[in-house]
Amino acid sequence: MTRSLFAPSARLAGGWAERVSFELDADGLILAATPDSAPAEGAERLSGPVVPGQPNLHSHAFQRAMAGLAERVDPDRSGGSGDSFWTWRETMYRFLGRLGPEELEAVAAQLYVEMLEAGYTAVGEFHYLHHDPSGAAYGQPAEMALRVLAAGGRTGIGLTLLPVLYGYGGFGGAPAGAGQRRFLNEPEALLTIVEAARAAAGDDSRLRVGLAPHSLRAVTPDSLEAALDGLAALDPAAPVHIHVAEQTREVEDCLAWSGRRPVRWLLDRGLPDRRWCLVHATHMTDDETRDLAASGAVAGLCPTTEANLGDGLFPAPGYLAAGGAWGVGSDSHVSVDPVEELRWLEYGQRLVLRRRNVLAGPSGHLGEDLWAAAAAGGAQALGQPAGALAPGRRADLVVLDDGLPCLAGRRGPALIDALVFAGNRRAVRDVMVAGRWCVRDGRHVAREAVRADFDAALAALGA
Amino acid sequence: MTRSLFAPSARLAGGWAERVSFELDADGLILAATPDSAPAEGAERLSGPVVPGQPNLHSHAFQRAMAGLAERVDPDRSGGSGDSFWTWRETMYRFLGRLGPEELEAVAAQLYVEMLEAGYTAVGEFHYLHHDPSGAAYGQPAEMALRVLAAGGRTGIGLTLLPVLYGYGGFGGAPAGAGQRRFLNEPEALLTIVEAARAAAGDDSRLRVGLAPHSLRAVTPDSLEAALDGLAALDPAAPVHIHVAEQTREVEDCLAWSGRRPVRWLLDRGLPDRRWCLVHATHMTDDETRDLAASGAVAGLCPTTEANLGDGLFPAPGYLAAGGAWGVGSDSHVSVDPVEELRWLEYGQRLVLRRRNVLAGPSGHLGEDLWAAAAAGGAQALGQPAGALAPGRRADLVVLDDGLPCLAGRRGPALIDALVFAGNRRAVRDVMVAGRWCVRDGRHVAREAVRADFDAALAALGA
Repeated sequence: MTRSLFAPSARLAGGWAERVSFELDADGLILAATPDSAPAEGAERLSGPVVPGQPNLHSHAFQRAMAGLAERVDPDRSGGSGDSFWTWRETMYRFLGRLGPEELEAVAAQLYVEMLEAGYTAVGEFHYLHHDPSGAAYGQPAEMALRVLAAGGRTGIGLTLLPVLYGYGGFGGAPAGAGQRRFLNEPEALLTIVEAARAAAGDDSRLRVGLAPHSLRAVTPDSLEAALDGLAALDPAAPVHIHVAEQTREVEDCLAWSGRRPVRWLLDRGLPDRRWCLVHATHMTDDETRDLAASGAVAGLCPTTEANLGDGLFPAPGYLAAGGAWGVGSDSHVSVDPVEELRWLEYGQRLVLRRRNVLAGPSGHLGEDLWAAAAAGGAQALGQPAGALAPGRRADLVVLDDGLPCLAGRRGPALIDALVFAGNRRAVRDVMVAGRWCVRDGRHVAREAVRADFDAALAALGA
Repeated sequence: MTRSLFAPSARLAGGWAERVSFELDADGLILAATPDSAPAEGAERLSGPVVPGQPNLHSHAFQRAMAGLAERVDPDRSGGSGDSFWTWRETMYRFLGRLGPEELEAVAAQLYVEMLEAGYTAVGEFHYLHHDPSGAAYGQPAEMALRVLAAGGRTGIGLTLLPVLYGYGGFGGAPAGAGQRRFLNEPEALLTIVEAARAAAGDDSRLRVGLAPHSLRAVTPDSLEAALDGLAALDPAAPVHIHVAEQTREVEDCLAWSGRRPVRWLLDRGLPDRRWCLVHATHMTDDETRDLAASGAVAGLCPTTEANLGDGLFPAPGYLAAGGAWGVGSDSHVSVDPVEELRWLEYGQRLVLRRRNVLAGPSGHLGEDLWAAAAAGGAQALGQPAGALAPGRRADLVVLDDGLPCLAGRRGPALIDALVFAGNRRAVRDVMVAGRWCVRDGRHVAREAVRADFDAALAALGA
């Protein structure tokens, strides 16, 4: 049983094409994408130009409920230092003290609705909120993980769940603090959660389960090895994500502990490969940059969160020159908009390097190059068969509203340049994941019901 | 004849207030703003929290039609340098060869509609496209200036028209090139345009006329003095804008010509004062930064355009520490969104300085501080009685949609923090300028008619 779609134009894996017929199977996989064609009989006609949906490779869903609350200086606490860490931490602790399974599911579903409406079609959930507020496991230890999966199922987004291995408070097995009690698991207990999530995901082609060592600060070499071995026994190709080299302090601490910088530590163990996503990877030497690019792993860049936190800038020119794969994530969700991530990934580089078109790729059209590279790298990082409109990939796609003023008169590569460099969220009209419409005319099909639950959750959280 | 508005909450000049009654006169000036009040009889009830409209202090309207077209590397022209200057220049020349009075009015009106829908309530038009494509003056030499005023009148935006003095191609009176022939005027001819524009503006409280020496590259000391003297004779308080210190090359050329950096050159002549707006002012020494702040002039910051061009970063910490006034402009219109300008003004600083809350002000709520400072500085730069909701100021205001998910549950200062750091364009519901509704429920009241003319202009331009 196949199904046909017809698009006036589409950005296929090889570039822009006109009058494209897509044939899909019953699971929403693309069987064929044929340019310069006439619509098949009974084909569904898409209302505008089509681009691949963008994967969002790094999300902490619960932080969505806190977005925008941390932009404060508390004069009583910060000592005039200009840092708002204390007010942010208090806010987070208040949330964590109240956030139960229902609230997590409601917040995650709201977030995924917003992602879909912005053109994200898949998400990697870096999930570390495992236990109840006292730190005790729930009766079903995978309770919180299953709630994230439920939010994914309710909204229709492609979801790669990455249960997080978090065991320690610092390098070399330093004990964790009370604020981290909801996060902690031994590798064995974490693998139980991974197994339960895999069982719940079943054979839904939109769902995938991997694992995420939180950071080299939060694991030991032994616990890391145990978790990776256990994961490989379940699924040898499962995605592995880790936070790494986000701030200079972490690099210094890792050097003090091991004599190696964190990215080098991973490389020396031979770990990063095509299954891996190194999130942030902000502070790397030229050699680390080149070797990470050559490893086949994906760099998980989070431009808006990294700018919000003042982390510093990814060494993009060297990484791209060495052929490195990358994608973007909205991380703390101060922005839920792939256009803002891509635009400001490039603009951050321009501001520091004082030149233009830093991330230009093969097409010479920077917007198109950025969108295509991030889609391919993001899909690889999530282990999802998406990231391009091509046979064998899933029909995850965004139909643009080319009637929007900022896109008026633009076609093909110039259209996607305008989307990335002059567009805004209104440009996303319809969004499909695995052949199913999640967003029509800018609205998620379950927007109102999901929102009602989100409002109830915010009330329960005292937000 | 007065009129009453009632807002559930509003950001007044002194901070957030609940249950605010506004009394307006027939010209849309605020007579009173009373917190903790009951609605007056017959008061119009506003549907959400109210913030001051944001002035946009720097615009080149015609560039709106080119936004997003310049993000290309032409491999045949750039020599692989990663710069897209040649393709950008070709695009601009093609536009300039075809852009007549009708097209300019249509493009400007479309731009101003988008500005209003995004929450900008006034604009400073840095207007240098004076002559016909051959470089000859139009029959009415102020033709193009009058078209910009007409676009302002059609859309209802507050408009400060700044006819540009452009006489030379480089420091010290170097001759201008053929590509600049539409821009050139002697001071006397330019003042004729200023007078014609003043006559057309009449006593409309939303319109103001000033003058803009393009840059120190484009004038001589004598022509600058003649233009400023002529302007002062017409209106001693008229705004004066100038591009300055945008790129390091300009600083070096100015040093070679005069032995002074460009901001220092202006300061040494005693020119910058509260009437002046120095646009960009990116490359300043610590002394220039402090002295410019003390002069009372406004720094005109254009974060998205400056990032797009890779100009570098404004020395914000020193400027703010010295009490300098500033506002934002969308300049080349790669973005038409005050939220993006303010957010990335702060984020650009964070990325380079590697700390948070760089631009924090008196309230400790960074979003509120940024919005209020930019509104006040922008209104000063435009010479418009706006920029705050207070008696004696014009009723230029934005009603926010606090039902938007990213604003859900936020009130008062936390609401405007969420707007600036987690919001998007959908947050703007209704927009009023001088007591008149320009935008209702996110749509400009003349959106469709203006758009039809814009589409016709784009077709004429071959865009």
